[in-house]
Amino acid sequence: MNFIKTPVKGMRDYLPRDMLLRQSVINMIRETYMKYGFTEIETPAMEHIENLTNKQGGENEKLIFKILKRGRSLETALANDASELSDSGLRYDLTVPLARYYANNASSLPVPFKALQIGSVWRADKPQKGRFRQFTQCDIDIIGEDSIMAEIELIAATADMLTKIFAQIGITKFTVHVSDRQILRAMADFAGFPKEEYSNIFIILDKYDKIGLAGVEDELRKNGYDEAAIQKYIDIFRNAVGDKSSREYCGFLFGRFLEEKCADDLDTIIQCVRRMVSGNVNVIFDPTLVRGMSYYTGTIFECSIDDYNFSIAGGGRYDKMIGKYSGTDVSACGFSIGFERIITILSDHMDLTKYGSQDKHVFLVQFGVSSEKILAVFQQAQQLRSEGKVVTVQAMRKNLKRQIEYLNASGYNIVTRVYKDE
Amino acid sequence: MNFIKTPVKGMRDYLPRDMLLRQSVINMIRETYMKYGFTEIETPAMEHIENLTNKQGGENEKLIFKILKRGRSLETALANDASELSDSGLRYDLTVPLARYYANNASSLPVPFKALQIGSVWRADKPQKGRFRQFTQCDIDIIGEDSIMAEIELIAATADMLTKIFAQIGITKFTVHVSDRQILRAMADFAGFPKEEYSNIFIILDKYDKIGLAGVEDELRKNGYDEAAIQKYIDIFRNAVGDKSSREYCGFLFGRFLEEKCADDLDTIIQCVRRMVSGNVNVIFDPTLVRGMSYYTGTIFECSIDDYNFSIAGGGRYDKMIGKYSGTDVSACGFSIGFERIITILSDHMDLTKYGSQDKHVFLVQFGVSSEKILAVFQQAQQLRSEGKVVTVQAMRKNLKRQIEYLNASGYNIVTRVYKDE
Repeated sequence: MNFIKTPVKGMRDYLPRDMLLRQSVINMIRETYMKYGFTEIETPAMEHIENLTNKQGGENEKLIFKILKRGRSLETALANDASELSDSGLRYDLTVPLARYYANNASSLPVPFKALQIGSVWRADKPQKGRFRQFTQCDIDIIGEDSIMAEIELIAATADMLTKIFAQIGITKFTVHVSDRQILRAMADFAGFPKEEYSNIFIILDKYDKIGLAGVEDELRKNGYDEAAIQKYIDIFRNAVGDKSSREYCGFLFGRFLEEKCADDLDTIIQCVRRMVSGNVNVIFDPTLVRGMSYYTGTIFECSIDDYNFSIAGGGRYDKMIGKYSGTDVSACGFSIGFERIITILSDHMDLTKYGSQDKHVFLVQFGVSSEKILAVFQQAQQLRSEGKVVTVQAMRKNLKRQIEYLNASGYNIVTRVYKDE
Repeated sequence: MNFIKTPVKGMRDYLPRDMLLRQSVINMIRETYMKYGFTEIETPAMEHIENLTNKQGGENEKLIFKILKRGRSLETALANDASELSDSGLRYDLTVPLARYYANNASSLPVPFKALQIGSVWRADKPQKGRFRQFTQCDIDIIGEDSIMAEIELIAATADMLTKIFAQIGITKFTVHVSDRQILRAMADFAGFPKEEYSNIFIILDKYDKIGLAGVEDELRKNGYDEAAIQKYIDIFRNAVGDKSSREYCGFLFGRFLEEKCADDLDTIIQCVRRMVSGNVNVIFDPTLVRGMSYYTGTIFECSIDDYNFSIAGGGRYDKMIGKYSGTDVSACGFSIGFERIITILSDHMDLTKYGSQDKHVFLVQFGVSSEKILAVFQQAQQLRSEGKVVTVQAMRKNLKRQIEYLNASGYNIVTRVYKDE
């Protein structure tokens, strides 16, 4: 027989020590978000192929693992049209399933609906270091709340959760970047770029973190945009230095390009979150923030650890998407947490072999021990368990020294040997 | 665009109240088993098609959801051999992945290794009431322990876990049925059936619960077995009535058909577990116990609720299976918990809308409230959360009465309204 020991390409087996950390982070996420009134939901791993290929998923739609049809429908597909070998696939994110879920279950859900999802997603990406074909995503979303209450709750809850998780490894400094797609558009409008070029310009601006303002200017020029517009645009961000409020910063846009309310709302969001979270969390208006997904319609936000160069959570308002599923427009705002990135950072800073350590008991029972003695051992084990202790009972092995080494390495520090004659 | 609201055929969306129950049961399972020294692992949802179709999975192998190959390998398969459209599939149980996992990771794992797995499995079964195409399985296994310590730990831990879970709905009476495949074989041998017919005979005996002893006798006769053998066999079970120990019951098999040690080991297992679990758990030797899977080699066990007609957990020793993956024989013993059945029984007995209820606070904020007031509301919310309370903040809606009804139905019993002018 032809057995294969390794996991399917690009996928992972989790060892017990990996799982302890993952599970403890998941518990902290769940516990924190539930205090903010989020309620957990779950959708199937599989979704209809029509839903997965509806253009909301961008590049991810090229990475779908498709499920083969079965029986007669497979035969029909093979005989007719090989492009129809599949009618479902594994989900590549939790947003498409959420939109479908809400459309399907709205009548059983409260308004607004605060959803928490933690689950696996699958992408047939090129396997590379730190990137896997099955990984965990964690999203919170508020559906049906069009006021800034949604943004405040999402950002405060996430900052709270991240503060708790990273406190374990002494990381306390975070920055939450907040902006609004309306401001992004107003700035491009002010500079004089043509509307149809906005999304391309935002893609370039999105690289600001990596290539700096001069790099953005260069790239705009390479794309052949009008020089006067480029200068006007770059000047905006030259003035971005400092800790200006959204109202102070956006003054030049008010009236023709931007409603004042947009800036004031952002400032209220920022003020509220600042007072809700630890003093080490820096909440700022960041006019260079873009966020990639095209479905965002309003506020956008991102969270980064000051010592790391990448975001660990990102989200925003997407008021038009769910309506495409349900037929009725409904406002929505969400935050997606980079679960795997968080785990990577934690693992880098922790000795996982010592994680969650406590006293652990093991009883080693020699072969041939009387059944009375065995009874006594298990009763003692049970007593310790009822006191909350971790206890394991195993047969004593020939190589006792090695057995005890194994046990110590697994955290069993209290070893009781039970011999036949004693 | 062609969006589909419903989940893929045979699969489910879980509402928040479903998830609360499922998650709380999973936590109880995890917590209990960890006290017994089990450590959690996780394997990918996908497995190599070779591993899934190795005949260990019986009928389940016909129900595999296969993953379509991609890119050039799909083109090649389409051009050459349509039977090779897939090289992986979704796992249909957690046993095949465990065997592969152990073969792949043995060098990083302790000996013996106590594994806990909780995860989704997929089967393309005909959808029917209470049976879904994606469902949760929960298995514990001890690999590398050939003594009865394994059986005792598995059964005691599971009885402990079930006692805790069902206490919530006032169900306290369970029966744990224990036997050994060696005894089953010895009884068939004693009766004089030919060896090659054993597995068929066990399939018939397995129906004892449903069709009674007369039914078993009838069916053996219909299968054309020797009348003298049938009589001798049926007589064994006629004497099974009562609470005999394995040693008392099996006396007539000792020597030629069965080693005494086998019966004594069973009795030690039963005695130990009896003293370890609540007095309401009835642990008995049950000579009619069969357990379907062909890979069991020794002890077998099953747990049932006295008021229900079906088993809610089953397992046994399977010392030959993992060696088929790893190339080295290693003993193994496992218990698989009927997670979905447990959830069904609990749901039948509970008011899920009240599950996990506690005081929950909601602040309803009127449109146009000053940002100072909003700040104050969120600070108050944060204070309550830091005290462990569940709090949500939302905009006041036009239909306030209906909004409050929604909130009450979701368990928000403490409502604070924040008006613009007050």
